[in-house]
Amino acid sequence: MRYELYYWPHIQGRGEYVRLALEEGEADYVDVARLPENEGGGRPAVAKLLQDASNKQPPFAPPLLKAGKIIISHTANILQYLGPRLGLAPKAEAMRLYAHGLQLTITDFVREAHDVHHPIANSLYYEDQKVEALRRSGHFKAERLTKFTNYFETVLARGGGKFMLGKSLSYVDLSMFQVMASLNYAFPQTMVGMRAKIPRLNALHDLVAARPRIARYLASPARLPFSTHDLMRHYPELDA
Amino acid sequence: MRYELYYWPHIQGRGEYVRLALEEGEADYVDVARLPENEGGGRPAVAKLLQDASNKQPPFAPPLLKAGKIIISHTANILQYLGPRLGLAPKAEAMRLYAHGLQLTITDFVREAHDVHHPIANSLYYEDQKVEALRRSGHFKAERLTKFTNYFETVLARGGGKFMLGKSLSYVDLSMFQVMASLNYAFPQTMVGMRAKIPRLNALHDLVAARPRIARYLASPARLPFSTHDLMRHYPELDA
Repeated sequence: MRYELYYWPHIQGRGEYVRLALEEGEADYVDVARLPENEGGGRPAVAKLLQDASNKQPPFAPPLLKAGKIIISHTANILQYLGPRLGLAPKAEAMRLYAHGLQLTITDFVREAHDVHHPIANSLYYEDQKVEALRRSGHFKAERLTKFTNYFETVLARGGGKFMLGKSLSYVDLSMFQVMASLNYAFPQTMVGMRAKIPRLNALHDLVAARPRIARYLASPARLPFSTHDLMRHYPELDA
Repeated sequence: MRYELYYWPHIQGRGEYVRLALEEGEADYVDVARLPENEGGGRPAVAKLLQDASNKQPPFAPPLLKAGKIIISHTANILQYLGPRLGLAPKAEAMRLYAHGLQLTITDFVREAHDVHHPIANSLYYEDQKVEALRRSGHFKAERLTKFTNYFETVLARGGGKFMLGKSLSYVDLSMFQVMASLNYAFPQTMVGMRAKIPRLNALHDLVAARPRIARYLASPARLPFSTHDLMRHYPELDA
């Protein structure tokens, strides 16, 4: 099965959580929008799939994964589907439900981190909501960032292993790596200040980054750089 | 199997999406926190489960569903689990993935509607972020509310039936009813203005409300009233 990922080609975004699973799982896949436009790629490829009026099950937004005739939407839903197929999910139902719950908490966390720089509207530039963003960033750093990272640190401590589900790697670890890498980029000063409180999360970040397939991917041109067009953004004034 | 729902007892909130499925599916369940505190209920029951240090798979937030020894977190995850067991999910994998994707889009929509009155921080009162809320509400009504409702209207139109997945009721319809009911409460003027554009969504709302088990539930004391403590809130200035 050759999977087709449809996601905006200029950012890591939510698509990156899927890319990391496809890479670690050595899946046969095409990152469709990264192909040149004259080969059916680019942003038009994503728009075309979103706007396909013949689709009786229309999706709302990317990332989308095409697996044969099936189109799957939402990052956590895609990962839940891919996990067992790529050897990145546990076998027991209870643990799969727990993994999906963790992934949905990651979804919420990423969303809150995004809304720090866009508290009013996605349709406005950051500069047009900077006053509100500054106010929100204070609450985010003091309350939410701490609450989420403490929670994930507890998950690692309780699990009895180095990974989110305990002794075995799962797609949740790859996503947790991406969250930590994004936070280290967007809030470097804040994250250094928190370092002593989240040793397990930092160790997990390093462990995932050092896995051969992930390390190779991160060093390749396929890995897009962090930027102020992405979900988490580095604006020094929001980190201060 | 007697299910145990753990959710804050004073609001509909995210727990209501689970309650509606349990009611329509005639499940054997206890809404634990609605029991008196001296019978193991109330808010302490939820807090106790959240803070149980012996739990090796700790949850982040309610609603939580206990099904035997399994604890499931996140509304969409709970509904995905309950759906097939209560006759409220399709059989084919592709349609189950689509249903879950729709539910996750509903999750995002509800979250955005909530953030209208809390754009800066959940830890602050509405009155302390009213200026920002007013600004956000304008963008929400003009951009996001329209985008989401148009999308769900398209889902109904493409599905070829009265329900979100076509000809059969699923848990997604119950959730869509709850979204529409909440929007009609929170933004009555705006929703009346949009009425002509979303005939299928309004018809779905009425169809679900008229189902015998749902009608009986809505008329019972178990159905909590809408309020300005809930996810969607009626503040006339945000609806104007």
